[in-house]
Amino acid sequence: MSSSLSFDLDPWSIGLSGVDPDELERRESVFAVSNGHVGWRGTLDEGEPCGIPGTYLNGVFERHPMPYAEEGYGYPDSGQSVVNVPDGKLIRLLVDDEPFDVRRGDLHRHEQRLDFRAGTLHRELDWTSPAGRRVRVTSTRLVSFEHRSVGAVRYRVEAVDAEVTVTIQSELVANIDHLGVHHDPRVKETLEDPFVPLAHAGLGTSATLVHRTRHSDLGLAVSMDHLVEAAPECDVRTDVSEDLGRTTVTARLAAGEAVEVVKAVGHEWSASDSASPSALRDRAEAAVAEALRGGWSELADGQRRRLDEFWACADVEVEGDPRLQQAVRFALFHVFQAAARLEVRSVPGKGLTGAGYEGHTFWDSEGFVLPLLTYTAPDAARQALLWRRSTLDLARERAAHLGLSGAAYPWRTVDGQESSGYWPASTAAFHVNADIAAAVALHAAVTGDQRFEEECALPVLVETARLWMSLGHTDDHGTFHLDGVTGPDEYTAVVDDNTFTNLMAQRNLRAAADAARRHAEAARGLGVTVEEIGGWEVTADVVAVPFSEELGVHEQSAGFTRRERWDFEGTEPEQYPLQEHFPYFDLYRKQVVKQADLVLALVFAHDAFTFEEKARAFRYYEELTVRDSSLSAAAQAVIAAEVGHLDLAVDYLAEVATLDLDDLREDTAEGLHMASLAGIWMALVAGFGGMRHGADGLWFAPRLAAPMTGLRFGVKVGGRTLRLEVRPDATTYRLAEGPTLRVHHFGEPLDLEAGVEVVAPTPAPVDAGPRPTQPRGRTPRTVEVALASISD
Amino acid sequence: MSSSLSFDLDPWSIGLSGVDPDELERRESVFAVSNGHVGWRGTLDEGEPCGIPGTYLNGVFERHPMPYAEEGYGYPDSGQSVVNVPDGKLIRLLVDDEPFDVRRGDLHRHEQRLDFRAGTLHRELDWTSPAGRRVRVTSTRLVSFEHRSVGAVRYRVEAVDAEVTVTIQSELVANIDHLGVHHDPRVKETLEDPFVPLAHAGLGTSATLVHRTRHSDLGLAVSMDHLVEAAPECDVRTDVSEDLGRTTVTARLAAGEAVEVVKAVGHEWSASDSASPSALRDRAEAAVAEALRGGWSELADGQRRRLDEFWACADVEVEGDPRLQQAVRFALFHVFQAAARLEVRSVPGKGLTGAGYEGHTFWDSEGFVLPLLTYTAPDAARQALLWRRSTLDLARERAAHLGLSGAAYPWRTVDGQESSGYWPASTAAFHVNADIAAAVALHAAVTGDQRFEEECALPVLVETARLWMSLGHTDDHGTFHLDGVTGPDEYTAVVDDNTFTNLMAQRNLRAAADAARRHAEAARGLGVTVEEIGGWEVTADVVAVPFSEELGVHEQSAGFTRRERWDFEGTEPEQYPLQEHFPYFDLYRKQVVKQADLVLALVFAHDAFTFEEKARAFRYYEELTVRDSSLSAAAQAVIAAEVGHLDLAVDYLAEVATLDLDDLREDTAEGLHMASLAGIWMALVAGFGGMRHGADGLWFAPRLAAPMTGLRFGVKVGGRTLRLEVRPDATTYRLAEGPTLRVHHFGEPLDLEAGVEVVAPTPAPVDAGPRPTQPRGRTPRTVEVALASISD
Repeated sequence: MSSSLSFDLDPWSIGLSGVDPDELERRESVFAVSNGHVGWRGTLDEGEPCGIPGTYLNGVFERHPMPYAEEGYGYPDSGQSVVNVPDGKLIRLLVDDEPFDVRRGDLHRHEQRLDFRAGTLHRELDWTSPAGRRVRVTSTRLVSFEHRSVGAVRYRVEAVDAEVTVTIQSELVANIDHLGVHHDPRVKETLEDPFVPLAHAGLGTSATLVHRTRHSDLGLAVSMDHLVEAAPECDVRTDVSEDLGRTTVTARLAAGEAVEVVKAVGHEWSASDSASPSALRDRAEAAVAEALRGGWSELADGQRRRLDEFWACADVEVEGDPRLQQAVRFALFHVFQAAARLEVRSVPGKGLTGAGYEGHTFWDSEGFVLPLLTYTAPDAARQALLWRRSTLDLARERAAHLGLSGAAYPWRTVDGQESSGYWPASTAAFHVNADIAAAVALHAAVTGDQRFEEECALPVLVETARLWMSLGHTDDHGTFHLDGVTGPDEYTAVVDDNTFTNLMAQRNLRAAADAARRHAEAARGLGVTVEEIGGWEVTADVVAVPFSEELGVHEQSAGFTRRERWDFEGTEPEQYPLQEHFPYFDLYRKQVVKQADLVLALVFAHDAFTFEEKARAFRYYEELTVRDSSLSAAAQAVIAAEVGHLDLAVDYLAEVATLDLDDLREDTAEGLHMASLAGIWMALVAGFGGMRHGADGLWFAPRLAAPMTGLRFGVKVGGRTLRLEVRPDATTYRLAEGPTLRVHHFGEPLDLEAGVEVVAPTPAPVDAGPRPTQPRGRTPRTVEVALASISD
Repeated sequence: MSSSLSFDLDPWSIGLSGVDPDELERRESVFAVSNGHVGWRGTLDEGEPCGIPGTYLNGVFERHPMPYAEEGYGYPDSGQSVVNVPDGKLIRLLVDDEPFDVRRGDLHRHEQRLDFRAGTLHRELDWTSPAGRRVRVTSTRLVSFEHRSVGAVRYRVEAVDAEVTVTIQSELVANIDHLGVHHDPRVKETLEDPFVPLAHAGLGTSATLVHRTRHSDLGLAVSMDHLVEAAPECDVRTDVSEDLGRTTVTARLAAGEAVEVVKAVGHEWSASDSASPSALRDRAEAAVAEALRGGWSELADGQRRRLDEFWACADVEVEGDPRLQQAVRFALFHVFQAAARLEVRSVPGKGLTGAGYEGHTFWDSEGFVLPLLTYTAPDAARQALLWRRSTLDLARERAAHLGLSGAAYPWRTVDGQESSGYWPASTAAFHVNADIAAAVALHAAVTGDQRFEEECALPVLVETARLWMSLGHTDDHGTFHLDGVTGPDEYTAVVDDNTFTNLMAQRNLRAAADAARRHAEAARGLGVTVEEIGGWEVTADVVAVPFSEELGVHEQSAGFTRRERWDFEGTEPEQYPLQEHFPYFDLYRKQVVKQADLVLALVFAHDAFTFEEKARAFRYYEELTVRDSSLSAAAQAVIAAEVGHLDLAVDYLAEVATLDLDDLREDTAEGLHMASLAGIWMALVAGFGGMRHGADGLWFAPRLAAPMTGLRFGVKVGGRTLRLEVRPDATTYRLAEGPTLRVHHFGEPLDLEAGVEVVAPTPAPVDAGPRPTQPRGRTPRTVEVALASISD
């Protein structure tokens, strides 16, 4: 798992020197640029060598058949896969008729760098062709935060020491091979050549292709246009056919002369029945024209402007280790990129950085990504939550199909329809509904956005509350149970009273009641009665919370602690991840935890546990948790910090921080893990900052641990920016604007006035006891070892 | 569900008059003839019209890919499907060049009759062709009990009132369309034309086709030959090509003259690598020659001889309703047919009467069918158990692949490899292993066959005992648990401590210990130590048996009675079977029982419960049991009778008795339910006869209920035939031969001497309380209504 990519160290960017053709897939994920609507993987401009040539549009997918060995009622009959849309980032280069290729000739220098403030992927290279012609190439690529459908490249070629003829072929290519995660030949076949050409056009320096997806019936237009600047004169011409647009620029350059092409690519799509091919073509072409109007500099300025605004509040500064600093900004940048221009779309598990998980969106978007955005880029978070609101009817239909009331959101989806083919780990994992409910409730509470609460949060809360009421039942002793469900831990499934699910359902019911009382008229419009609200409140009070009196710990689910422990001693390192080496039935029936589940409940439902309960539970589940999921270490870091195991918390922080950069799951090639990137922030802010959202606002309990000597972070609350500076002995709170804000520091209220710094001391550390142990071989690497793996 | 087939009433046969082309599929299942090696569905001889033209050879199957929406460790990558082997039962008839077809011309009479003593399917018809030529046709079909690979037909055509030219085309046809249960196009494609032709030959009146299955690589030779008798002279010639052999007999018949063809068809197969095509051909041709040597009369005599022997012990006589009488003999005949000439093969779920369940064998073979055969045709039972022994290595490999010790038998299979694609209802249903263990142990105990016990029972018991030891665990309080398993009830899955499974595992452990102690040397050869035996015994004593103190009933699994009850009141009749209208997750998490599970434990582990516990449990689970499985009513009949609800027991008996004849599951077309047929015997013998096998031999508690006025049945114990005659007031026991046999009559020992009748009185009835109730709409039909549905 050790990386052979060593990133260079910079607080505001991440870069790589040289090109290792075997490592292109990872590089392309790390260097992906996106605005949440369009995503371009960090390929080399000229298209070859290439790992996975991804260009994705949020929401553009193809349907494929779902095969089952044995059918069952309620199984989805079709799946969804994100597909490569026509690729406009390609720029091929010929030097005196010799194609430029990093694998040929003499590559003196090659550097690629993703800049977190500029919002660009920058590339510089210096190359001598096999025929001895030397050129310097500089390219800068961006996906615009200001022009939603536009990606752009500035590509500049300079003749170094002799006259050369340079040909730049700027292309737009449809039906590029798709990297499939499916093995079934029918599925693969369906996903080959997903686009049916509808129209194409070329004129001057521009070309446009219009397509339709074969099965999902989405219309799509991609257009490109160019600004060409060259010291000498040059030839420009454009050819276009069904699946290819190509603008060719040929220039004769004397030594020291350069040719520069600025290319803008516009991407527009919609359901086939809501926009004609010509309407889509016009939109794409207009977007390109608009983007090129101010030239490259305006595009680049727009990026920086949007990012300055983001960083002003969101930036997290870590003192003590530059690699942690780089990692957290890398994470924040990618999460922002994934959401910046969503407009009622979701943040998929991999953002738009790869086709992993088929481009699907899961519960971890609401569980990890959207809370971060709610605190740092609330407009982006709102768009993603509005997407869930927009799919509420589909979720209602799904619930009805399952024989339930309210709404049952899909476990995995692109367009809102359930696309999972293994129900014990999907349909049964009803907690996705409570996770979504928690995210809308948090957003309403943190932003104070009344309209959002009424129009988005309320209906989502009401329908998910109704789901719980129909899913659960109250036993003869008056306790409410949710039987036969699956919690976050995917090594335990179809259990009774998963504590995480139950507590999240409890919060869901209370939030629904709360919102319905405060928006009484809107609630009535949803058919909510006073009796229904009362039912939610009464039920929330009697939700079962399994607890082992014998062991004095909360149970992950009813009976969990009575089960056999996994044979960790007999499990070899190469048998992880366990799901690839052991059958589900065996994992499910034993005490082995893939990812934080009860421990995640300690974070998400933090006020349902005492400090002692948290400490005991954390110690118990540490012994069982193997972290075969990228969603685990962040929650473990947060609770480790809370219960006083700060050194362990730092190790978990380092694991989250290196997950993608060190490719710990060996799947970074398929895209970055958005939730895990958000987890870096969560480990720092909720872990070392001790931040929790309670009924009466924000609570902090900041404590540092080596190697961190200082930590600064900010959150937006009700439109106001609050920044904290944490030092070992004290924390400084600074509210930028607005009315007084009450927060809590280690339980003590602080009333913060705008512009006034408040310094609060750090209390003496708690005695946390001996460091908890993990299963054999699953202890996290120390922070030193982990960080050394990504750069030195 | 009501039948439109009305069978005529006869104690020793079942017949149908007329032909309804829409009902052919069911008729073909009911009229199937088989010897366990070869199975011919009851098609019309001339092949058209036809429902499902099945010709099956036990063990001949094709492999097909198993598609999964999401892959998992341990999922089988290929499935198995029984395929139609070359069909030799076809005899086409032309009358003056006009093809005979029941749908054309004038069919004066058509009768088909399956004779339980003759072992033949007899057919008579009288037809006038559209051109006005009248013939009488008599055909008799059998699959030989004496010539294992041979099926035969005697086909006789008589000119009635004028001279006609009669042409009989006797055919052998390969690659006939297969009725598939799969919807996946890849699977369907694989199962089309499964046979690759290897050789063919024809000579005189004989033809042979040799094939190989494309994927499973089995070699197969089918040969036919004929004896032709005609009053006048006739022409005979044979043509043969890759997939077709045809012998054509043409005769000119004067009025009153007849032509008769006796056709024998031999079927031989083996794995391609263990017999050459020419060896198979020779075997098939030799079998045919041998079968035809004595002409039709010897073939027919052989059938009757074998059946006389079977009926001498096995016959069950029911007085009081001729339809019950017919149904139980129908059942016994089909079960005997399915097993008569197995030779180390299994009894598939549908025998060889159809391709339902893909021709797979399940646990119900050992649970229901083989106990019947152990008591009535022990040699046949032994062959099926030896098949399980022969697949023990595959079961060991499967266990190892699952990370378990010992042997894990497949949930469904043709050749012994797991072929199930939905693990919660297959891999997790480990009870199949205990069911097999119980069947081998019972067989050894009932037959007293020491060699069988040592060579077959012992290794199976040892390896299944080892499975339980590795599958379960002993908790801190010293109780042994089997977590995450699925019991017989398919509406509850992946639960802890399924009572049926736990008690069957307990018996498995004890039987293994017992056998290992008595065959110490053989046990040592299997690596069994004294310590291991001790471990089995100690563990058996501490197996968890979930019991609700609050309700005073045994739980089907841990926590079962705490769960929400299914909304039976809100479930409409057309929503059954529930699995077709509700998702698994919802069925699994509620109190709803598809088929007897805890109640089956009351039967199979009868000595683990007191009478009061049985009565309480039966009442409790009656309210929850919807009988969406054919495996339920028999067990319910047995326990209803035991706890004193004799009228309910009769209704359940009637349900089992009419399941296939009245097509209650709407799937008789795909073959008869062997386990349910055995269930008729079980309901009568274990239910009304009260027969149980205990450690000290057979226990009886016979009680009749209206409409039964008398019941006679027999069992073979240690080679001796014991027959009982049950009357309302007393039961007469008669041991045919051998040393004294001790049995129990209502708990009192009776020592039976050969040839001496012992009459024992029936005790006064117990007060069973009010009749238990079933879910709304799931009360069984009364015996009168049920029996009226099949004939009147």
